[in-house]
Amino acid sequence: MTPPRAARPTLAVVGATGAVGTVVLQIVSHHADIWGEIRLLASPRSAGRKLAVRGEEVEVVALDETALAGVDVALFAVPDRVAAQWAPLAAAAGAVVVDTSGVFRTDPEVPLVVPEVNPHAVRMRPHGIVASPHCTTLSMIVALGPLHAEFGLRELVLSSYQAVSSAGREGVRTLRRQLSLVAGTELGTSPGDLRRAVGDDTGPFPEPVALNVVPWAGTADRDGWSSEETALRRETRRILGLPALPVAVTCVRVPVVTGHALTVHARFENDVTVDRAREILATAPGVVLCDDPEAGEFPTPADVVGTDPAWVGRVRRALDDPTALDFFVCADNLRKGAALNATQIAELVVGDRGGGGGARGA
Amino acid sequence: MTPPRAARPTLAVVGATGAVGTVVLQIVSHHADIWGEIRLLASPRSAGRKLAVRGEEVEVVALDETALAGVDVALFAVPDRVAAQWAPLAAAAGAVVVDTSGVFRTDPEVPLVVPEVNPHAVRMRPHGIVASPHCTTLSMIVALGPLHAEFGLRELVLSSYQAVSSAGREGVRTLRRQLSLVAGTELGTSPGDLRRAVGDDTGPFPEPVALNVVPWAGTADRDGWSSEETALRRETRRILGLPALPVAVTCVRVPVVTGHALTVHARFENDVTVDRAREILATAPGVVLCDDPEAGEFPTPADVVGTDPAWVGRVRRALDDPTALDFFVCADNLRKGAALNATQIAELVVGDRGGGGGARGA
Repeated sequence: MTPPRAARPTLAVVGATGAVGTVVLQIVSHHADIWGEIRLLASPRSAGRKLAVRGEEVEVVALDETALAGVDVALFAVPDRVAAQWAPLAAAAGAVVVDTSGVFRTDPEVPLVVPEVNPHAVRMRPHGIVASPHCTTLSMIVALGPLHAEFGLRELVLSSYQAVSSAGREGVRTLRRQLSLVAGTELGTSPGDLRRAVGDDTGPFPEPVALNVVPWAGTADRDGWSSEETALRRETRRILGLPALPVAVTCVRVPVVTGHALTVHARFENDVTVDRAREILATAPGVVLCDDPEAGEFPTPADVVGTDPAWVGRVRRALDDPTALDFFVCADNLRKGAALNATQIAELVVGDRGGGGGARGA
Repeated sequence: MTPPRAARPTLAVVGATGAVGTVVLQIVSHHADIWGEIRLLASPRSAGRKLAVRGEEVEVVALDETALAGVDVALFAVPDRVAAQWAPLAAAAGAVVVDTSGVFRTDPEVPLVVPEVNPHAVRMRPHGIVASPHCTTLSMIVALGPLHAEFGLRELVLSSYQAVSSAGREGVRTLRRQLSLVAGTELGTSPGDLRRAVGDDTGPFPEPVALNVVPWAGTADRDGWSSEETALRRETRRILGLPALPVAVTCVRVPVVTGHALTVHARFENDVTVDRAREILATAPGVVLCDDPEAGEFPTPADVVGTDPAWVGRVRRALDDPTALDFFVCADNLRKGAALNATQIAELVVGDRGGGGGARGA
């Protein structure tokens, strides 16, 4: 029996008007209605706007300490500097914070949680903060987790095909502006023609992204690796509990609006078979297997945008290594890659409470 | 001293009006003028057209046995079925055939040649036919060859970002039509919207390629691998003389007009250093090193279109394996990937003749 709303936990969506916050509101409107109040917080600039949640209009409130009072779970979908300032305050006010920013992902005392893969980790949150991984990690980890559980992961080589919307609304606007410049032209066929047409209008990207691919995402980390590449390695190791897993990855931006894709070459402790890998993927939570290329069945970003799962196709055993699998995986970087995973963590937190008591875990 | 044209070898360009043939004519017009007559052959439909070569107008002649008489080197840039029929006839008429189609690449008695990597192989041509590799192989092999020579290649994991022009002019037309449909719209953000907008207009591709990436190129080979993936493995092994090299590869089409890119994870027999790898790449023939990501220096397809070399960037040592390098490589799939490599082979063939004697080798 569902308790009445007044007896149910309060969810605050911090950054409710942003790209990820907007998707969070759609998702909580469609999931089982486990929340009492859903409070929408944003910058003072957005206060007073009304947004639809669960079929009702809810007014956006400015983020301040008063607005955080009585919140059980605070889902943060805000830029790093806002999260760094406000997430600890929300936790101090008694909320469990679920944060989608990059601020807390590297903190060993903040669990990094993917509900399908390491749900147990959500309980160990000494600071009252739980982090949701980077969208690129999330786009492939729900497929990799169950394969690791079966075969024992030993090494990983990844290449990404990353959509522009993970660079925010300005990423999307930049691609659309550039597409309008190149459509109906013969651009892309002579040296420098794209760069001349686009000029300085590269937005958040270092190079034109329309009719191009850009092998650089994030900032410089160390030894030539980008921050997104080292994050993908570090987060995969943490979520799978494999602190020494060899991971090589190249992150590449592609002219896709939404839907991250990755090629995965995974070597395991034991011999693999494609049949067993397909069985595992076909029944894994959060995964859809779409794998009959001769019949045109493989996932593409255009297929997965707006959907929840990670879609897997092109599952093959390496021709020269009976312990290795190659596959292609695609997921919506705004849903599973951000809003959906954070909402699932929030649901896991209140599910773990057993319906009563403090939201903060051990 | 250059001999007069009458004393120099005759080159026939078969398929002179096609996408690759057109680029061959540009290239021979800019390279050292080693040819006597340059004869332009094509289907009867194109006969009588005039094309510019070396600053002169040359009339296109219909491909038949008469047109092949007296030819020293016949460069074939035609579809597979035309090459299968006419290349043996041209060889029987005394020409050395340099073929860019897929027909002869798997024949152990037809050498597969990349002049920067295995020039010696051009001499062993018992059928008078030399094959130029697939454009995806050519886009990365000139960078890989010298690294193999230094460190000893032991394993390769590749992912491709393949331009539409390697699917011919219809590939380019398809992308441009789809771009005109999606520019100025909000497409690419909800399930199935791209597919509905594009309808059946997917041209030579199984899925929409604008605002999308498509993890399938070629036809089905075996065990879920595509023909382009197994070709990349087979050709790399052959060109490098490593018949048992483990190669895993996923080929993915991207919405780029011209310029193939690949991510490369290469494991070697010996420990590698990035400094030594960069030295090798900076001096390797046919390679340009462009590698300072913090300063915005890395190659993209938009940079390399219309240029001859393979451009390499993002050179890193694997963080967990002192014997492995990761890098990103980009080349013009119509130039080095087809027309340029074939022209280089033709030049190598006549260079090997020492200026006289029969063109056919041992």
